[in-house]
Amino acid sequence: MVPMQLPDELAIRSEGGPKIILVVLDGLGGLPHPDTGRTELETARTPNLDALASKSSVGLLSPVGEGITPGSGPAHLALFGYDPVEKLIGRGVLSALGVGFELAPGDVAARLNLATFAEDGTVMDRRAGRPSDEEARRVVDRINDGIEAPDGVEVHFIPEKEHRVVLVLRGEGLFPELEDTDPQRTGLPAHPVRPASEEGRGTAEMVQGLLEQVRYILSDEPVANGFLARGFAGYEPYPSYLDRYGLRAAGCARYPMYRGVARLAGMAIPGVPSSTEDTVTLVERIAAEHDFVFVHFKDTDSYGHDGDFDGKVAAIEEVDALVPRLTALDPAVLVVTGDHSTPTLYREHSWHHVPLLIASTWGRPSAKSFGETDCRGGDLGVVRGKDLMSLALAHAARLDKYGA
Amino acid sequence: MVPMQLPDELAIRSEGGPKIILVVLDGLGGLPHPDTGRTELETARTPNLDALASKSSVGLLSPVGEGITPGSGPAHLALFGYDPVEKLIGRGVLSALGVGFELAPGDVAARLNLATFAEDGTVMDRRAGRPSDEEARRVVDRINDGIEAPDGVEVHFIPEKEHRVVLVLRGEGLFPELEDTDPQRTGLPAHPVRPASEEGRGTAEMVQGLLEQVRYILSDEPVANGFLARGFAGYEPYPSYLDRYGLRAAGCARYPMYRGVARLAGMAIPGVPSSTEDTVTLVERIAAEHDFVFVHFKDTDSYGHDGDFDGKVAAIEEVDALVPRLTALDPAVLVVTGDHSTPTLYREHSWHHVPLLIASTWGRPSAKSFGETDCRGGDLGVVRGKDLMSLALAHAARLDKYGA
Repeated sequence: MVPMQLPDELAIRSEGGPKIILVVLDGLGGLPHPDTGRTELETARTPNLDALASKSSVGLLSPVGEGITPGSGPAHLALFGYDPVEKLIGRGVLSALGVGFELAPGDVAARLNLATFAEDGTVMDRRAGRPSDEEARRVVDRINDGIEAPDGVEVHFIPEKEHRVVLVLRGEGLFPELEDTDPQRTGLPAHPVRPASEEGRGTAEMVQGLLEQVRYILSDEPVANGFLARGFAGYEPYPSYLDRYGLRAAGCARYPMYRGVARLAGMAIPGVPSSTEDTVTLVERIAAEHDFVFVHFKDTDSYGHDGDFDGKVAAIEEVDALVPRLTALDPAVLVVTGDHSTPTLYREHSWHHVPLLIASTWGRPSAKSFGETDCRGGDLGVVRGKDLMSLALAHAARLDKYGA
Repeated sequence: MVPMQLPDELAIRSEGGPKIILVVLDGLGGLPHPDTGRTELETARTPNLDALASKSSVGLLSPVGEGITPGSGPAHLALFGYDPVEKLIGRGVLSALGVGFELAPGDVAARLNLATFAEDGTVMDRRAGRPSDEEARRVVDRINDGIEAPDGVEVHFIPEKEHRVVLVLRGEGLFPELEDTDPQRTGLPAHPVRPASEEGRGTAEMVQGLLEQVRYILSDEPVANGFLARGFAGYEPYPSYLDRYGLRAAGCARYPMYRGVARLAGMAIPGVPSSTEDTVTLVERIAAEHDFVFVHFKDTDSYGHDGDFDGKVAAIEEVDALVPRLTALDPAVLVVTGDHSTPTLYREHSWHHVPLLIASTWGRPSAKSFGETDCRGGDLGVVRGKDLMSLALAHAARLDKYGA
């Protein structure tokens, strides 16, 4: 017998049924402040999250694996119920999805940096002085106007943000496994485009030719006069939320990367919010037409990277103040967690477990407040990221019984 | 894309980087004393381990699987990051490594018992009256002098301890899957050497011939006049710690078995300590040249088998008193745990979870002392044995981020 695919095959496909909202505070988990012993979340005044936690089943989330520090892409895929170790997704694909490019199977995508090259071809500035979005768009428009695509291949350069540009290639038989050209240091020339195996030689030479064309087109630009390339990846679509769980899903996120990973799971992207509060406004506007809404808040992670404890505390409090507007939408299940920890003391993503609450009618509450300490020893125990969707569906009564 | 091998492919290979010390108190976990409700570890006065625990992330270790009582070999392999269920290692190989024999790929090893056989071939004493080490060596020397090895095969008999002897065979195309000859009871003849499949018939007949030669050589011995054989196993080297994690690793253990399993993981064996304290002295002597040091203390397990609660308490206190000498080496990560539980009330290895602490800069402390109760509900949750190395590497900042 073929084993059942769980939870997918148990999903109750009822459009307009109980609604699930998944709130992700990026990098939520923290480490205790040396003076107080309290983490960022435990320091923040969060009356709304605390009230929610006290009625919820709580636990700790292990996003990708014990001891594993995930990037944002794999971490979100895990939260969405996809095993990111079985199927690692390339950065180029995430970026292309993030800028809203409608990828097709077989497309190859890469992340490019606009860079400054010296006469002799060595890299002077790996980010071309961090151009403004407008300046980058002007340069990329010149490239798209001037580039000559090889026969049978579509070539797209799409500005992402500042110096970051996405390259998408579409054509028959493209080979996605190409190595980065970024030498990671100034004063060195870019690496040539190399394929991971001999069968990729044709694609590698074609991409190398494109990068050389770009250098020629931009030869009169004083600052942004070429590209460094990394994160080449081929696009293979994932089974969508609708196919897997029968959920009409939407993703509300301010930053491209998170819209990209939502799109990868087949979620609709109903808009581009301009602020934390605007993200919630977007959720309010689209909630009625969707069974599942992913809501992403970025600032907690950014302050974590900056090592700004108080900033992260404030970012948590800002989200807390908006929680009543989410509960007012009366979801059957409201999940609040993070995609990973970004402790301000560590200043990077980390492997530490992430606080998790699942608010529903069917909770086994144990926490007095929402924090690392109170989530420890909760009824959910330590939850693997890829099990979160099962739990969310179950608490929404959207899963059938397994077996008789 | 091929799934990544985690955590190996994320390991940061920096010789002389942050150091990890793994302290294993064999059979550490216990059961509550009926009079006090406190386990051996909770009864012991352990000011140093308690201080360490109060600054550490703690949890419970599940060595091999829920409800599974592991032997020492599989339990240590799990602690070292090898899945002992996927790749079970034969007892013969462990014993050969334990006595310091340098196995080569394709070697076949078995554990032998010196036994007493009656005239009619039945077994009178399965352990030949437990001879002293000296007496056993005298008998084994006679065998090695008298044995005629078959063409193209090297035959080694190596005394292990008392009646226990290791057999190693080296040659082309040896078949390792041979069944035990030990009938497990006196009054019965030994089983003939049988292969698990027909292709092993040649090897089985050859080994049978060797065992008959031994009976002939020892025919005038009054007590130890033959062998019972078990645990036949072929040796295939494991990927080493250096290959897997970039760690120059060493194992410091008083007993052969634990040096053997350390050697299997490619650890250096810098010496043979003569006591618990001498084990720590060895660690001090070699720590500077290694990135990872495994330290093994045996007495806790021995007292557990004896059912000696107070003896196990004293053995724990002896290690506790040495902890400051380990912390003085300033490792980035100090892990303290056991390979399994050996509760004195149970007098055997058991399946119970084992207390675990991971001391580092990046802990989320919750315990006041080191014990089963305080480790319960710690931030690490229940840690599978094979995930321990990921966690140790992560806390030492020796793992890269997974994905972007």
